[in-house]
Amino acid sequence: MAEQPAIVLVRPQLGENIGKAARAMLNFGLTEMRLVAPRDGWPNPSAGPAAAGADRILAEAKLFDTTAEAVADCVEVFATTVRKRGDTKPVVGPEEAASAIRVSSGKSAILFGPERSGLDAADVSLARSILTVPINPEFGSLNLAQAVILCAYEWSRSEGMVQPPKTDALPPAPQSELEGLIAHAERMLAAKNYFLPEERAEASKRTLRNVLTSPGWNHLEVRTMRGILSTLENPPRGERR
Amino acid sequence: MAEQPAIVLVRPQLGENIGKAARAMLNFGLTEMRLVAPRDGWPNPSAGPAAAGADRILAEAKLFDTTAEAVADCVEVFATTVRKRGDTKPVVGPEEAASAIRVSSGKSAILFGPERSGLDAADVSLARSILTVPINPEFGSLNLAQAVILCAYEWSRSEGMVQPPKTDALPPAPQSELEGLIAHAERMLAAKNYFLPEERAEASKRTLRNVLTSPGWNHLEVRTMRGILSTLENPPRGERR
Repeated sequence: MAEQPAIVLVRPQLGENIGKAARAMLNFGLTEMRLVAPRDGWPNPSAGPAAAGADRILAEAKLFDTTAEAVADCVEVFATTVRKRGDTKPVVGPEEAASAIRVSSGKSAILFGPERSGLDAADVSLARSILTVPINPEFGSLNLAQAVILCAYEWSRSEGMVQPPKTDALPPAPQSELEGLIAHAERMLAAKNYFLPEERAEASKRTLRNVLTSPGWNHLEVRTMRGILSTLENPPRGERR
Repeated sequence: MAEQPAIVLVRPQLGENIGKAARAMLNFGLTEMRLVAPRDGWPNPSAGPAAAGADRILAEAKLFDTTAEAVADCVEVFATTVRKRGDTKPVVGPEEAASAIRVSSGKSAILFGPERSGLDAADVSLARSILTVPINPEFGSLNLAQAVILCAYEWSRSEGMVQPPKTDALPPAPQSELEGLIAHAERMLAAKNYFLPEERAEASKRTLRNVLTSPGWNHLEVRTMRGILSTLENPPRGERR
């Protein structure tokens, strides 16, 4: 039985909306909320009244400084965002996301951005897939709690439709192992001035992250890649002391 | 092609909630709202701001004195309510309701009751079916706009045109490009004695190939990886001659 996904609110602005999101979650049995750097701090006195009884979720919500830390233990990360031209990640709807979470063997996370701006590119680059609710192209106006409730509803609906995973393949490695690999590659490339000139560094790092995130490598594959990097940065084997 | 269902708000209490319901509807392409005896009269100045741009729906909403009049032209009527012991009508979920509306040949209506009390027995008796959103039995706390948005979402989802969005992701690179990448990595690793001892060389090469093949990298991603390898095997940029 798959674990329920963590609902990750990234830099939420209003405490009231955090409370409404908690209420939306609990209606469909989701109880694990994670908060990344809420604008007005945490706890927030406006959240409780809006939760309308879902206080336990707020009380147990985990607080993180960065999105990367919030998803460090997750094998599947979905970024909710509107679809853009040139998306290079797979784009799924709430139903497909729920199915994918059901068959994954580990913790999943669904990221929701700040009310006004949504997730930024750095947040999205942490995710393997983009989750988009297919809405009226002439009137897209889903608020945070509504986006959460549609995802929670599909999660609930997908129960009982659980299909066994189709493959014996290992699950993707936890995000923390992937971060280790990315950091290792960044360190080696920085030493070779790969990220110069400075003004292109951020884009280059994002590209690197996307290339290393897209494979969904499992634990063993990440370990192999780490071994490859270590081999390349050291003197030839047998010539080491 | 089936007509879209009318969303019928029966004796709604707050203008704000009428506006929120309109906004929820329009996100999924529903535009026909009917109002039965709104508590605070109609029009209501609180509705517009909450509609967040879905004003047209409010402007075109039709007003009725009784629920019976509001559904007089409808061939299928669904009453949203929690399921009770002894229901004598068929009970369906939002998905089944949407399918039934799709195949019906005439106008359908979905009834939503007042915020606090829900539909009364007389309203429910007008309906052929009961529509229940399957929620957490220990925490049922859907508000009016949330109930509307889940029904609207299912209506939208049931439209044949609404397909899960496809990604703009590029197809995997041609095998020849992948082979070029693998050969490049093998050459660099061989120089570091990665494939020694000899009897393990074949297995190591197979592992390397699997790790680099599994991502299904596209042309641009393979090129990025080639660039990374070239960077790592050469002196730092800016120090080359």
